[in-house]
Amino acid sequence: LHSKLPKVGTTIFSQISQLAARHQAINLSQGFPDFPADALLLDKLAEYSRQGLNQYAPMPGIAELREQIAMLIQRCYQRDVSAELDVTVTSGATEALFVAISAVVQAGDEVIVFDPAYDSYEPAINLCGATAVHIALQAPGYRIDWQQVAKSITARTKLIIVNSPHNPTGMVFSQADWLALQQLVLQHNLYCISDEVYEHMVFDGAAQLSAHCLPELAQRSFIVSSFGKTFHVTGWKLGYCVAPAALTAEFRKLHQYVTFSSFTPAQYAVAAMLKQRPQQVVGLGAFYQRKRDSFAGLLQHSRFKLLPCQGTYFLLADYSAISDMDDVQFCQWLTTEHKVAAIPLSVFYQSPPNARIIRFCFAKQDSTLQAAAELLCQI
Amino acid sequence: LHSKLPKVGTTIFSQISQLAARHQAINLSQGFPDFPADALLLDKLAEYSRQGLNQYAPMPGIAELREQIAMLIQRCYQRDVSAELDVTVTSGATEALFVAISAVVQAGDEVIVFDPAYDSYEPAINLCGATAVHIALQAPGYRIDWQQVAKSITARTKLIIVNSPHNPTGMVFSQADWLALQQLVLQHNLYCISDEVYEHMVFDGAAQLSAHCLPELAQRSFIVSSFGKTFHVTGWKLGYCVAPAALTAEFRKLHQYVTFSSFTPAQYAVAAMLKQRPQQVVGLGAFYQRKRDSFAGLLQHSRFKLLPCQGTYFLLADYSAISDMDDVQFCQWLTTEHKVAAIPLSVFYQSPPNARIIRFCFAKQDSTLQAAAELLCQI
Ligand SMILES: CSCCC(=O)C(=O)O
Ligand SMILES: CSCCC(=O)C(=O)O
Repeated sequence: LHSKLPKVGTTIFSQISQLAARHQAINLSQGFPDFPADALLLDKLAEYSRQGLNQYAPMPGIAELREQIAMLIQRCYQRDVSAELDVTVTSGATEALFVAISAVVQAGDEVIVFDPAYDSYEPAINLCGATAVHIALQAPGYRIDWQQVAKSITARTKLIIVNSPHNPTGMVFSQADWLALQQLVLQHNLYCISDEVYEHMVFDGAAQLSAHCLPELAQRSFIVSSFGKTFHVTGWKLGYCVAPAALTAEFRKLHQYVTFSSFTPAQYAVAAMLKQRPQQVVGLGAFYQRKRDSFAGLLQHSRFKLLPCQGTYFLLADYSAISDMDDVQFCQWLTTEHKVAAIPLSVFYQSPPNARIIRFCFAKQDSTLQAAAELLCQI
Repeated sequence: LHSKLPKVGTTIFSQISQLAARHQAINLSQGFPDFPADALLLDKLAEYSRQGLNQYAPMPGIAELREQIAMLIQRCYQRDVSAELDVTVTSGATEALFVAISAVVQAGDEVIVFDPAYDSYEPAINLCGATAVHIALQAPGYRIDWQQVAKSITARTKLIIVNSPHNPTGMVFSQADWLALQQLVLQHNLYCISDEVYEHMVFDGAAQLSAHCLPELAQRSFIVSSFGKTFHVTGWKLGYCVAPAALTAEFRKLHQYVTFSSFTPAQYAVAAMLKQRPQQVVGLGAFYQRKRDSFAGLLQHSRFKLLPCQGTYFLLADYSAISDMDDVQFCQWLTTEHKVAAIPLSVFYQSPPNARIIRFCFAKQDSTLQAAAELLCQI
């Protein structure tokens, strides 16, 4: 069989998580919480499933959940979206990203992505016969130089994919970033995919901004988010895509044949959570800021130098005071020899800079973070 | 936005199910049971989720479930497959079909499909820039003429998609069909996708056959099935694909970026069901045969003429004694005026024959079938 994705291997998240399990290392690699979800969410899952809500959900998602999503967007960003026409529930943000890319991108197109970039964008682009144009961001701030972006736009550029709060760097777009993005999108008639799965995890009193906040940008955007991140259930694979009706119509054409619909009882359970526990979403930033600060505090006397982190549940750490190994080797060594798993930064780049930086996930119980920090401080 | 699927509208299943809900019609259209799943399955879902198994499953599916799938295949077909290398859990059979098609089909390829064909095959083929070559099957038997198939194979033919037991006709492949398929696949170096979601619903003492039973065919096949059908939980969207290791490697490359993984607690719950209630699967044929016979019996004195049904949970009915309407109009009329929803057969064809045939789903409680039959007998 002729491979359509010859460059693709097993994603780094699976590789390192497997290595961590094999070596009984504390897993700060793949991004998932190790603490329980709210009991209400799990109770509701059980309840709805026992009530018999186990058959196909409507293809765009159950109405109750889409309405709660529209209300959440209204609360967070004061934007009105139509639950009926603009919102589609998906099997995780991954499906939403895949479908949005596939709906827009044609053979020969160019798509702008920012490195370090989440690993699913490029394969989806390549499957459409299109090319990812990588713009590399630099430590320590990983800010986007929008003039450089403007220079990278060609007649073939169809789409730009942004991700704020940014995995893996923790960079968060300022209002100026959003405005610059909007200007480019409008000026060049681009589409935008805004990957906002960490939208509620913004720290230090910064405003929670989004493509939802800029009406003209939103008119050309697929805005993707995920309840797996928001409610601490990454294995539930429940995400969504918000886009204007015309874009949503195309999105749904594909979604209908990619997965058709998503796990029904979870849709009802998440709708109930959004209704009964809206404060959970509001409190998420403070919740994770405390974890960031406590983990950073514990590593203060380690030889890791932490980079700034404005959002997400990831922290970058420079280990150049410890080792000269490249970051893939270092992560393997860290996992097998020191029993802490992390993700190398270079795997998110097309042309990796020669940096000594790895990513820790701090979406963990305090006891996990403490145990990991103890091991890391001994290195 | 330039549509990549200009011919696609909302799937007939959503359309008719919505119409049925609006008119409070008994819904015998979209294929899903209206009776509860086994309490053990629902208890296990609640239990595993409360135990905290809510984070990402491994990308190919949890090992426990893949092992149970391998054992199920061994029990049903005496074939050894590797849980590790050959089995991938997917977000429904729909995802498995989409990914298998996308992994194999290149721009310019031809793919043979048999009409009436499940509606998701062609859009997936078209998204790859390839063409579906439709071979129409004829009432009443809907058997495949393998010589005609041989004549339809060209140098561009890459893949053949089969579906036995067949939705919507209830046709089931004989051993001769499987052998003819195998011969063509081997002779022309094709790949095969065998959509076997109704595999355990075979009636009248016929042998349960599968692409799994023919080693040389299986070597070039993606065999797709679904627990939604087997355990009466179509909304759980849990399917799987079995293919030789080299094909599975390509399959997983795409699956990893289409959905990455599927709802974790459901994977554990289904693994527990397969382990603790294997007899449920074995009994499925008898279970649905009784429903087929009871529904057919109830319609005996109606003006519908039922076609033979060897498997699946669908029955075709000829309504030409009742009306001259085309089948789409007839289904709308049946739903709105007589409060029973069914699916028109023509929507499964590229070039619909001028038949007066609709599809009923009999995966319903006896009381539902009775109520529907009463209404249908009055027409
Ligand atoms: C789908 S596994 C990757 C999880 C994640 O978002 C990350 O670790 O970056
Ligand atoms: C995904 S909705 C279609 C359900 C089904 O398999 C059918 O009704 O044929």
